[in-house]
Amino acid sequence: MANEVILLDYWVSPFGMRVRIALAEKGIKHEYREEDLRNKSPLLLQMNPVHKKIPVLIHNGKPICESLIAVQYIDEVWNEKSPLLPSDPYQKSQARFWADYIDKKIYEVAGNNWTKKEEEQEAAKKEFIEALKLLEQELGDKIFFGGDKLGFVDVAFIPLYNWFRGYEAFGKISVYKECPMFSAWANRCMQIESVSKSLPDQDKIHDLIVELKKKYGFE
Amino acid sequence: MANEVILLDYWVSPFGMRVRIALAEKGIKHEYREEDLRNKSPLLLQMNPVHKKIPVLIHNGKPICESLIAVQYIDEVWNEKSPLLPSDPYQKSQARFWADYIDKKIYEVAGNNWTKKEEEQEAAKKEFIEALKLLEQELGDKIFFGGDKLGFVDVAFIPLYNWFRGYEAFGKISVYKECPMFSAWANRCMQIESVSKSLPDQDKIHDLIVELKKKYGFE
Repeated sequence: MANEVILLDYWVSPFGMRVRIALAEKGIKHEYREEDLRNKSPLLLQMNPVHKKIPVLIHNGKPICESLIAVQYIDEVWNEKSPLLPSDPYQKSQARFWADYIDKKIYEVAGNNWTKKEEEQEAAKKEFIEALKLLEQELGDKIFFGGDKLGFVDVAFIPLYNWFRGYEAFGKISVYKECPMFSAWANRCMQIESVSKSLPDQDKIHDLIVELKKKYGFE
Repeated sequence: MANEVILLDYWVSPFGMRVRIALAEKGIKHEYREEDLRNKSPLLLQMNPVHKKIPVLIHNGKPICESLIAVQYIDEVWNEKSPLLPSDPYQKSQARFWADYIDKKIYEVAGNNWTKKEEEQEAAKKEFIEALKLLEQELGDKIFFGGDKLGFVDVAFIPLYNWFRGYEAFGKISVYKECPMFSAWANRCMQIESVSKSLPDQDKIHDLIVELKKKYGFE
């Protein structure tokens, strides 16, 4: 059977970026379809009727929703090249734990950095840095979370890179000063083609943050 | 190597019940340790320093946190008996999707049924029933979500059974009238020993809900 792979996505979605990186790591040919989130395509609504969200990976007509589930699916189906999850069940459980931590904790506290009002930002910043430091500890002296090679946790986490640089630019927080190991790790990830070509241009993200801050009144 | 398995848990936790059912399904001997959540044990804080929550499965001294991750771990390590996840990657991704839906959606909207004030309860009830109906659709005419046998989604979902019966008792909502297929499925699950012996007595849950409603003023 021919492998027809379509990705319904939106350029700035860190969740979409995860799936893009996994597809690129495995070298899977696919059609990328940019969605207009204010006017979602009938295909998106049909393929993800529950959440109606991108990204959706469509493999031979069948949808896989939720980014971490899609990345695991890609890893299981295209298992000959660039394994993302370790084969050992314990190591695998730990990779899943940290990816889950990124979804449950990091996204929440990272978002607070630019949506909270001035007076709440100090607390938001502190919580954010503490949450990042836990991940730095988990990285330890490894090159990547996956060891010598990019793994599941790296794929889950690196899409936040550009957003963090956005915070930097707005002068509210220096991720690089506070978490130098995170910074060094992110730079190593960005050297990998599957990552760099899957992440959008930093200036475009910066402009978007400016626009969103204005639109929603977070100044 | 001997398999030393310890479960740090709390009797009423639906997340803990998932791990209990998985251990029972596989017939894994283990030591159950009830935690006092107001005075957590040093072992719990050491084994789950990130979230400091039960359940924690400890296998030969190493912790696995987060219930769905622990259930997957159990399924992968003790893989000779009672498989919980399908082996086919697509079917596996769908089981993960629905288990994730239960965590993200069902727990949230179910909780609203007894924490919201009177005037908000009608909307909460409607949302809850709609969320359940999506799961009923997914079940379709299968015996269990896992097909002929208990599977990952069944294990993720059935711990809510007693709580739903609690809503019934309080007369706010008739889960059984609104979702008869859910009711029939839950009854089938409760016929299975690994489930029935892992779920607490219904009267104890009822008493707990009464106590919590009083304590937090949800009347």
